[in-house]
Amino acid sequence: MDLATLVGMLGAFGIVVTAIFLGGSFGQFIDVPSMLIVIGGGLMATLIRFQLSDVGSAFGTGFKVAIAGKGASPRDLISEITNLGEIVRKSGPLGLENVDVSDPVLAKGVQYIADGYELEFIKEAMERERDLQLTRLSEGKRIFKALGDSAPAFGMIGTLVGLVQMLANMDDPAAIGPSMAVALLTTLYGALISNIICIPLVEKLDAKFDVDELSQTLIIDGVLQIRENKSPALIKEMLIAYLPEKVRAELAEAA
Amino acid sequence: MDLATLVGMLGAFGIVVTAIFLGGSFGQFIDVPSMLIVIGGGLMATLIRFQLSDVGSAFGTGFKVAIAGKGASPRDLISEITNLGEIVRKSGPLGLENVDVSDPVLAKGVQYIADGYELEFIKEAMERERDLQLTRLSEGKRIFKALGDSAPAFGMIGTLVGLVQMLANMDDPAAIGPSMAVALLTTLYGALISNIICIPLVEKLDAKFDVDELSQTLIIDGVLQIRENKSPALIKEMLIAYLPEKVRAELAEAA
Amino acid sequence: MDLATLVGMLGAFGIVVTAIFLGGSFGQFIDVPSMLIVIGGGLMATLIRFQLSDVGSAFGTGFKVAIAGKGASPRDLISEITNLGEIVRKSGPLGLENVDVSDPVLAKGVQYIADGYELEFIKEAMERERDLQLTRLSEGKRIFKALGDSAPAFGMIGTLVGLVQMLANMDDPAAIGPSMAVALLTTLYGALISNIICIPLVEKLDAKFDVDELSQTLIIDGVLQIRENKSPALIKEMLIAYLPEKVRAELAEAA
Amino acid sequence: MDLATLVGMLGAFGIVVTAIFLGGSFGQFIDVPSMLIVIGGGLMATLIRFQLSDVGSAFGTGFKVAIAGKGASPRDLISEITNLGEIVRKSGPLGLENVDVSDPVLAKGVQYIADGYELEFIKEAMERERDLQLTRLSEGKRIFKALGDSAPAFGMIGTLVGLVQMLANMDDPAAIGPSMAVALLTTLYGALISNIICIPLVEKLDAKFDVDELSQTLIIDGVLQIRENKSPALIKEMLIAYLPEKVRAELAEAA
Amino acid sequence: MDLATLVGMLGAFGIVVTAIFLGGSFGQFIDVPSMLIVIGGGLMATLIRFQLSDVGSAFGTGFKVAIAGKGASPRDLISEITNLGEIVRKSGPLGLENVDVSDPVLAKGVQYIADGYELEFIKEAMERERDLQLTRLSEGKRIFKALGDSAPAFGMIGTLVGLVQMLANMDDPAAIGPSMAVALLTTLYGALISNIICIPLVEKLDAKFDVDELSQTLIIDGVLQIRENKSPALIKEMLIAYLPEKVRAELAEAA
Repeated sequence: MDLATLVGMLGAFGIVVTAIFLGGSFGQFIDVPSMLIVIGGGLMATLIRFQLSDVGSAFGTGFKVAIAGKGASPRDLISEITNLGEIVRKSGPLGLENVDVSDPVLAKGVQYIADGYELEFIKEAMERERDLQLTRLSEGKRIFKALGDSAPAFGMIGTLVGLVQMLANMDDPAAIGPSMAVALLTTLYGALISNIICIPLVEKLDAKFDVDELSQTLIIDGVLQIRENKSPALIKEMLIAYLPEKVRAELAEAA
Repeated sequence: MDLATLVGMLGAFGIVVTAIFLGGSFGQFIDVPSMLIVIGGGLMATLIRFQLSDVGSAFGTGFKVAIAGKGASPRDLISEITNLGEIVRKSGPLGLENVDVSDPVLAKGVQYIADGYELEFIKEAMERERDLQLTRLSEGKRIFKALGDSAPAFGMIGTLVGLVQMLANMDDPAAIGPSMAVALLTTLYGALISNIICIPLVEKLDAKFDVDELSQTLIIDGVLQIRENKSPALIKEMLIAYLPEKVRAELAEAA
Repeated sequence: MDLATLVGMLGAFGIVVTAIFLGGSFGQFIDVPSMLIVIGGGLMATLIRFQLSDVGSAFGTGFKVAIAGKGASPRDLISEITNLGEIVRKSGPLGLENVDVSDPVLAKGVQYIADGYELEFIKEAMERERDLQLTRLSEGKRIFKALGDSAPAFGMIGTLVGLVQMLANMDDPAAIGPSMAVALLTTLYGALISNIICIPLVEKLDAKFDVDELSQTLIIDGVLQIRENKSPALIKEMLIAYLPEKVRAELAEAA
Repeated sequence: MDLATLVGMLGAFGIVVTAIFLGGSFGQFIDVPSMLIVIGGGLMATLIRFQLSDVGSAFGTGFKVAIAGKGASPRDLISEITNLGEIVRKSGPLGLENVDVSDPVLAKGVQYIADGYELEFIKEAMERERDLQLTRLSEGKRIFKALGDSAPAFGMIGTLVGLVQMLANMDDPAAIGPSMAVALLTTLYGALISNIICIPLVEKLDAKFDVDELSQTLIIDGVLQIRENKSPALIKEMLIAYLPEKVRAELAEAA
Repeated sequence: MDLATLVGMLGAFGIVVTAIFLGGSFGQFIDVPSMLIVIGGGLMATLIRFQLSDVGSAFGTGFKVAIAGKGASPRDLISEITNLGEIVRKSGPLGLENVDVSDPVLAKGVQYIADGYELEFIKEAMERERDLQLTRLSEGKRIFKALGDSAPAFGMIGTLVGLVQMLANMDDPAAIGPSMAVALLTTLYGALISNIICIPLVEKLDAKFDVDELSQTLIIDGVLQIRENKSPALIKEMLIAYLPEKVRAELAEAA
């Protein structure tokens, strides 16, 4: 689990809810038609930009990735791959059959080796899988970006609709305040959706993209080197070159 | 038909209309002079940026493309082209005479082969056609972008005009509310035109541009290879290289 | 005449004026001090950014180019140049003496040939002329951009000045409405100047720049080829290569 | 003196002051605490971004350059350099001792030649001087940009402070108007500082940068050629290549 | 200490506080729930974008660097390195044992030399350290940028919440003013956090990044040259090439 995403999102909503309770009743902040305009309208305007089939899955993938844990750190991946290389050196590809592997992509690669597939086949299959996953990630990003743009726009549209209705019927002065309060709710909803969910998720997915690209490329290269029967020491040395300077320094400290 | 565009646009308008009905009468949201300012003014300001002859056709093309279906998927196109290649192998170019072809661009290319045109002529004619279509697409995009910028601007201009008129004649306090409601309508219209129609269409056309460029280039290359009598297996292999990783993976799964 | 610019600008102003008349008197929208702030202030802030000598001429050139007609289309230019090439082939450079030429740049080039100037001289003189004209065009663009930025800023400044004056003297409640109406006029003026004149003109000049660069380069190349006594057929073929795909297709249809 | 900068700035302030006088007393637009917030706060926020030592000098340099005259035009510089080249040809470097030179950078270069310095030394010294001056220019630009961003922000902060104070003490309705008038003053000040001084100066300094870079590079090259005893005709020809097309055309007309 | 950062920040806050005291009581500008929304919400929305472990340290590093002094100037660094080179020439690496070194990075490098490490090891260790520090700097920048974006957004959200609460309970007209005053406080807090802290710090860290990159690269190169026993004169000459033109000129003046 990526605690930062969850803590941040729940925390931000919690803070706003607390502030609402401190100031009065929570009920006056719930208005179903207002939600309909902002969430429904924002989703519809997002829909226009994409293919019908892409939207649902992209939302799901985007959200899942955003709250998913980091998986094994590059440091752990390298030592795991080095261990696997040692096993193959000792007992051949068949030695991998019953090994427990933490990362699903690495597990798949290990299975390929155990099954005796050709180097070229493993490379192509794993790279295709990686590209597919990265494409889904960047589509998820684009969709949250579109919703983050259109939700505040529909918030404003909803407020304008409410203002026009209030202004056209000002016979009862006592109703002006509450009507205007309701009119402002759509703007509030739009701001919450955009600033608590969409904009931060877009930046999170952006960062995850880079991390995933690195670790999956590292795994693919490691699997290929195991397949080629390279010595564990050599594998380790080559994989460390993938790490950014910062992680390499931590690795050196830990050593 | 591209369902996402239609569903999204109608859905977004439907949501706003529903919200209006829930809050009161629909009539107070219809004001012809306000529409005149936003739609007319927005179109005029768009017109200044282009040649008179381009505007009409670009709107049409842009809209048509945006709601047009995707056409055959690259996957279907490749198998269709492979089939055509097989026919030519078996019964020569004349065998193509009575073949049913799903895609109009591909149909034109097949007709060229059946009519015995030179490779060079077919290449030039089809590439010109593709460039022409892509140019129209990008002009459609530019025009919706211009309207998406100027409609909200004229919405604001209309609201300012209404506010000035209201403020200059405040003798009858009862008229203030309704006058201001009408003044806000232009801002609402501008926001709707921009956020439900123009901005999403610009992004849609942007995506369609890439898709069209890919599939048409794929068709042209396929037709040229058929004309050169390449073997169907070879044609298929070469065309698959055009596909993005994601589609290639689906293809492999389907195989 | 470029009808789109004129129709668009007059149309947009006409629409706003009509909307004003529908809602009341036109007089309340005319306020000379407000105009002074927006137009004067906007021009002054534009002036700071440029050299004194450039501003006047750049405005003039920009406006002139924006409403100028397209001149001969590339298609017509090519056939005219081909004809001229034929004349020179038949009756030598002197045959050009009394020929009527539609485009002024082309006319100048033809005169150079008739006067027997060297190829190198003609090339340099015409290229310098073209660069000079393109420089003026892009300066006109920059100046309208600066005015389009500063006019709304001074519209806001004027409204703030008006609001402060109104708020500081609220003894007479009846004067509040009209004072505020006047205060809003500067914002309205700024929005009109920016959205009806400046922003569209900047985009128009941008497009004209590309068109002019193309057609003038085409003319220069055509004149040089006539000077070199190339055959009309060859001239035509080489000049067609300058055309963008779209125009080339129209040319082919027309042929 | 660069008249455009001075005329534009004084003109813009004059127009705003005139508009204020037309509408009432000038005194209500002067509020020292408001000025303190906008000017002081804007300067402090600018200060954070830079080193203490840079800010003062950068403001000074930026302002001085912005209102400084253009110096000799490239056209005049070239003929002056050509003359100097002729003098050296006739009477050797010592002939430069008592020559009057209009441009200070050129004068320094001429002094170097008269003093018999090596080519390499002159080149390095003059290039260092030019880079130093261009660095100061671009720092001046960055500082005015920072102030142009932060002044309106502190204008808004000041207005918020004023509004909160006014709203918290609404016992005396008669004081509401004047309090709000004062609250708006900071926004007005911020808009004036940004739109009349900072934004135009940034663009002016940007343009000056290009002009200075051109003319100083031209001077350096000219001085080096004089030092090498090149013939005046050759010097002129080589320096003209530095000029942009526009100036070159004027030169040709003047010739 | 970087006085500009401290003076600027304290000065800006001081100016706002002074303006508040001039206009009334300070207490009305303190509202704990409002602070909770802006600071808490802004931090939560920042948290979503990063890993939990990065946020705290990045804030610390960013702030520390922003108010840290410049360290030794490049000019002083070069003369210090030259001195160290002389010591090694005279008394060998062991002569460095008891030398006092001003800069901690340089001190570490000198220690490496005294301890007799290999050139390759020193190079790698010091470059890793530099990259690590630059990475932390750029992460600090990204985090202040995220907070600078989300604080004003939560300021607006807080004001909307307050407005809705006020409008829904307008029974007591006397409470309207104070309620609205409180509602505006979150917008004020958001503007202060963004404009006094975050935006200027982002630009400061940006500038520090370039300075640090230069001086640390200079130190590394200097240490390596000392390790290689290069002559002090040669070391000085090579290091001066790192300096930007401006500093080089000051150096020449000082010489």
